[in-house]
Formats: sequence, structure tokens, C-alpha cells
Amino acid sequence: MPFIIEGKNPLIELFRSGHPVTKILLADGLKQDKAVTEILCLARTKNIPVERVPRHMIDGQSANAVNQGVIAYAAAKEYAGLDDLLAVSAKKNEPPLYVVLDGIEDPQNLGSILRTAYAAGIHGVIIRERRAAGLTAAVAKASAGAMWYIPVASVSSIASAIETLKKSNVWITGIDRSGKEEYTRIDFKSPSAIVIGSEGKGLSELVEKKCDFVAHIPMRGQINSLNASVAAALVMYEAFKQRSITRR
Amino acid sequence: MPFIIEGKNPLIELFRSGHPVTKILLADGLKQDKAVTEILCLARTKNIPVERVPRHMIDGQSANAVNQGVIAYAAAKEYAGLDDLLAVSAKKNEPPLYVVLDGIEDPQNLGSILRTAYAAGIHGVIIRERRAAGLTAAVAKASAGAMWYIPVASVSSIASAIETLKKSNVWITGIDRSGKEEYTRIDFKSPSAIVIGSEGKGLSELVEKKCDFVAHIPMRGQINSLNASVAAALVMYEAFKQRSITRR
Repeated sequence: MPFIIEGKNPLIELFRSGHPVTKILLADGLKQDKAVTEILCLARTKNIPVERVPRHMIDGQSANAVNQGVIAYAAAKEYAGLDDLLAVSAKKNEPPLYVVLDGIEDPQNLGSILRTAYAAGIHGVIIRERRAAGLTAAVAKASAGAMWYIPVASVSSIASAIETLKKSNVWITGIDRSGKEEYTRIDFKSPSAIVIGSEGKGLSELVEKKCDFVAHIPMRGQINSLNASVAAALVMYEAFKQRSITRR
Repeated sequence: MPFIIEGKNPLIELFRSGHPVTKILLADGLKQDKAVTEILCLARTKNIPVERVPRHMIDGQSANAVNQGVIAYAAAKEYAGLDDLLAVSAKKNEPPLYVVLDGIEDPQNLGSILRTAYAAGIHGVIIRERRAAGLTAAVAKASAGAMWYIPVASVSSIASAIETLKKSNVWITGIDRSGKEEYTRIDFKSPSAIVIGSEGKGLSELVEKKCDFVAHIPMRGQINSLNASVAAALVMYEAFKQRSITRR
């Protein structure tokens, strides 16, 4: 099944990533603004067919109303294997740094996490096959294109994936409000994986037990959790900072 | 106009905050699960009328399909004045710490920022009256109820609001990728306001000029921005951390 990318920016981000684009549909009479000009120019350079079609045909293929008169067909984003993630770290000559998502269900959250992960130099993200958001067009959009760059592995069991990482000497830190340590006290300069629980339930018991450390994010007030993508961002950037200081 | 709150959790969060609830509508035949039991119990305690109505009546008043058969009418959240924000800091006996949003348009982002702001001990948030998300039910939901707790001031001009803060000796730090300093090098222990730009455009030129400092968040890779609510969270938590260390 081809991947349908909707809207100007998501398409431009897709182009820039070098991910294969099969065909572009533009609505008849679409105003040729700066973004459309860039799309046409990139399409010509890359020899990608552009078809002008009535607007209703575009809306008919569109999952939401914000396609801006532009959709494109692309190859689906392929999932990496766990081995691939380990290879990425080796190639970068850095201690591994992964994010493991134990059931993020909201595509907006997954997209936001991929975007931050990519910016924070995370080597790869591991997601759950079932009862979790996968790599869809909505996620690509929410990731501002980061989905096309960062390796994502999809696994049937997060617990087994953690076991595999441990065998490669990766230290596993789960983030949960029950955690003893503050997240800033964890050493992320060593080979590390950060495990984030699902939006509603946090870490599952089984996964929490597999973690070497469980850390919490301090909070004030009457509400006892942060948005999952915010929690993930805080910890990823803590790891990024620790590693940047080492490199200086 | 009454505020319509949809869904079980948003209603429970509203109750807990103590914000006035006028009336609750439950769909006929709604399964009485744990959340519904809690709602009925809280309603009885607080003497709030509960009406059983056909499901279509609830759907008819609902802005989205995820009302779970539950809606409630509440008083709108009142905006604070800038003076109120300064009073909050004085009352807490802490140097002021505010977040200023220069045009956040997405209710999800605004909600997420309020949620993180509340958790990070921010004293108040300043938003723009026009071309920006206001305090709606969608924002309340995305804030996980934090909107009911944290003071929010709405101003016609962000630039003038910054001037007012400066007169109260608050230091203004704008966050923008053009910023010279890394955000972790800014001193947030002093009276501070963190200024976050809009999703698409970042800080406006006028607002950027008013800032005492402009700081950036370091990033790797091909994408040059973070989600606005993530960027805000990183800086708010940096401030929170600096202040926590002082208090120890």
C-alpha cells in the first residue's frame, strides 16, 4: 500500500529526506505560491510525475481536510531491525543511545518524540507492534519530517527487545513517577536506552522490572504526569546535554 | 457562554481543581465504570445537578466525537491580569518565573505548555489575544486539567507586556534558533520570563528586540526546529532545575 503524504510542508520535508516519492497530485487551479513552486522544481529535478486533478479527487484520498490541494504517494517507511540500530551507533562511533516506547498510542505524540529524538541525536527508536501508533503519514507530519531520517524498529515484545539491548551492554532507564532517582542523576554517557510508557498507563509492570534504573521527572502541583512526548523530550535532552559536555 | 467540558477525565480534572461546574449531562444507558462512579459521587458531594439524556443530545453539543457520553457545563476560565501574575510570585515568596507565548495557535500545544508550566512551578503564562489559541475546552483537555490551576493573562500586545515585566525587574529570555547562548547558560534563578514564538514563525522581530537575551536549544540533524511545546518544556524545566538546586 502506498503511503499518502498530504500538504505542502510534509511533502517538502519528504523530498529533502531523499525518501522515494512515486507521484504527486496537485489540485486544479492551485495557487502557485513559494511552496508549490519548490515542490514543482524538486519534482522536475527528481523526475517525479506531477498530475493536475480536480480538488475533490485529492480530498477523496485525503485522511484529513488539511491537504492544501497537494498529496503525494511515497514508499512506506521501512522499519529497522534491532541489529540495525546497534549498527547505527557503531557507525557514529558513539555509545548507543536509544528510546524505547512502551505503547505510545497518539500519532501526534509519536511524531513529536521522533522529531525531538532526531534533534537530540538519538540513534534509533523502538516501538511496539501492537496497541501503539505505527509509522503513518500523520506521524510523518507531526515529526516535521524527522520520521524519514531516524531509524525506527518495531518489535512484538518490548520486554524481549530490552533483553536484547542488555546483551549488547546497553543500560536501561525507565521513566516513571515511581522512580527513585531524578532523571538528571542518571548517567546517559554510557550505552543507554530510555524507556517511556504509554500515555494513560505509564510503564507496564513487566517492562519496569526489566529496567536497570527507574527515574522520575520532578513535578510540582496537583497533576502527576507530563505529556508523554514532553517527558520523553526532557530525558532525551538530558542525555544529549551529558554527551555534549563529554565531547567538548 | 458556558464552557462545555467533554469526556470523563477532563471532567474529573475539572472537579478536582475546584473550578465551578454548573451541570452534568450523562448519556442514557452509559456503563457505570469507575470514572462515572467518581463523577456521580463528586457531583453529589458538590450538589451539582446530573441529567440523564439521550446520547444524540450529548453528541449534538459536543465539539468532537470523544465525549464518552459525558459533558458538563462550567464557568469559563477567567484570565488574570499582569498584576495578578506578579502577585502570585510575591505570595509564593519566589523570584517571578513566567512564560510568554508570542502566538501559539494550536490548542494542543497551548494545553501541553500549560501542563508542563504548572508541573515546573511557573507562576503564570501570558498569551496573545489575537491570532493565538485561547483558553478553550480543547486546551483544558490537552492540559490534563492544569489550565484550571495556572494563572493565564491575555494581552493585546506581547511587546507591551514585556515592557511591563521589565519595569518589575524581570529578565526576558527569548528562545529562538538565532540565539547566541545555549538555553542552559541563562540564569533563570533571577526574576525571569521565557518567551516562546509561534509554531510556524518563531519569535516576531519586534518581540525578539525587546528580549534581554535570546537563547537557542542545540539540535543535531537536518531539521531546524522542535515542536513549540517541547521547546517550551525544555526551557521551563531548565529553570525549574536551576531553582530547585538553589533551594536544596
